[in-house]
Amino acid sequence: MRRVALGIAYRGTAYQGWQSQPGGCTVQDKLEAALSAFVDQPVTTLCAGRTDAGVHGLNQVVHLDSPVEREPFSWVRGCNRYLPQDIAVQWCREVAPGFHARNSARSRRYRYLLLESPVRPALEDGQAGWVFRPLDGDAMRAAAARLIGEHDFSSFRSSECQAASPVKTLYAIQITRRGAYWRLDFHGSAFLHHMIRNIMGCLVAVGSGRQPPGWIDAVLAARDRDAAAPTFAAEGLYFVGPQYDPALGIPEHTPAMDWFG
Amino acid sequence: MRRVALGIAYRGTAYQGWQSQPGGCTVQDKLEAALSAFVDQPVTTLCAGRTDAGVHGLNQVVHLDSPVEREPFSWVRGCNRYLPQDIAVQWCREVAPGFHARNSARSRRYRYLLLESPVRPALEDGQAGWVFRPLDGDAMRAAAARLIGEHDFSSFRSSECQAASPVKTLYAIQITRRGAYWRLDFHGSAFLHHMIRNIMGCLVAVGSGRQPPGWIDAVLAARDRDAAAPTFAAEGLYFVGPQYDPALGIPEHTPAMDWFG
Repeated sequence: MRRVALGIAYRGTAYQGWQSQPGGCTVQDKLEAALSAFVDQPVTTLCAGRTDAGVHGLNQVVHLDSPVEREPFSWVRGCNRYLPQDIAVQWCREVAPGFHARNSARSRRYRYLLLESPVRPALEDGQAGWVFRPLDGDAMRAAAARLIGEHDFSSFRSSECQAASPVKTLYAIQITRRGAYWRLDFHGSAFLHHMIRNIMGCLVAVGSGRQPPGWIDAVLAARDRDAAAPTFAAEGLYFVGPQYDPALGIPEHTPAMDWFG
Repeated sequence: MRRVALGIAYRGTAYQGWQSQPGGCTVQDKLEAALSAFVDQPVTTLCAGRTDAGVHGLNQVVHLDSPVEREPFSWVRGCNRYLPQDIAVQWCREVAPGFHARNSARSRRYRYLLLESPVRPALEDGQAGWVFRPLDGDAMRAAAARLIGEHDFSSFRSSECQAASPVKTLYAIQITRRGAYWRLDFHGSAFLHHMIRNIMGCLVAVGSGRQPPGWIDAVLAARDRDAAAPTFAAEGLYFVGPQYDPALGIPEHTPAMDWFG
């Protein structure tokens, strides 16, 4: 058996999230079906970060143990032949048997794309969140700054979250604007289920003036999901990907990332 | 009757182009159905530039004669309620009776987004063209420069083209790159059917080294469709929109344009 790591890009619109389900309409189901067709044997994968229904992936990393030996690029080309048009393997590396897509990851990056416009998205439907009220970037940045560091993020955690601990470290939330589009880049040790969508709900509440930036401290201190704003839309969320020890040589960039400049 | 101009953004993936068809699965059909529902009477529209199946619109402009009077933003909000998620009216202006979405336009802009990668698009499936061979930007720019000015573009014209004359003026083709993405911005007086997709086919032939830049002169001089490269994929093509006399006050920017930065 050889351990293989793959990077996957996908548009999540058509899928019920990453995690395999009986219906078979998840990204993992499509990927494993393609991998199994390619090696002509059942293949199971383990990913760096599960994504919800409608959430997209720019460099989702998975590992698997392969019963057969193949050249790295032939994994890419071979699997892509069996994958639907909105999912594609981006790269492949043979890795040491100890490599684990989730446990070896030191941190993760996510991005949220948010349209601020009186008119809903059309061209970007399913690929961006939307607010029709103007947002105050400085207020959102002040709110975001209060979340940086190691915290108990229970207030931002869905009731279905399976993480062992609600304590995570947020390294950075970068908020930039390009015309009608806001881009929020999140970097953290790991993220709880719905954590970014719940943070987004709170940042939008602050950005639109419904709450002051200092309200975030109270939300954090409450350690109670009911203290935070409603979970924001999945459509605008992108799992940028995990980061590993650079010595492992796992690619952190995919062409899909250049789509947003 | 009052003449009204509207700006429309749409993702063309699900539609058989702009122009109304008996099946009803075109952008014009969806728009006119929404407008008719909004004013509760049949409405027909005339657009600045028809787009092919799979081609997208950032600021398609249409005009119509309305039997009823409505506030401009209520046209926007009212029609969007009846439109599918991938089409949305962006703005509305009441215009003089002499305004004509097509005939009043002085020029048009189109954009082509092209992924250069060994791996096909996934996240951007349906929204970008794709080449797996590296492209030489300088060679493409040298080829594009030969097309600027007034020319007989018969070699780049589809056999179904209904334009009165094949003589058009190209003002500019700007070619820029951002990581794995090429962006080609076209500005011209008007465009023949398939003209940009046929130019794209030729520019890619030059960029990938199959033809030298000077070959473009021979293609242009031939005035024969068979002299040019095959029509390039519709997926990466965006109708940015028409330009009018600025005194008319027709918006040239929509939030959808900020999606690409």
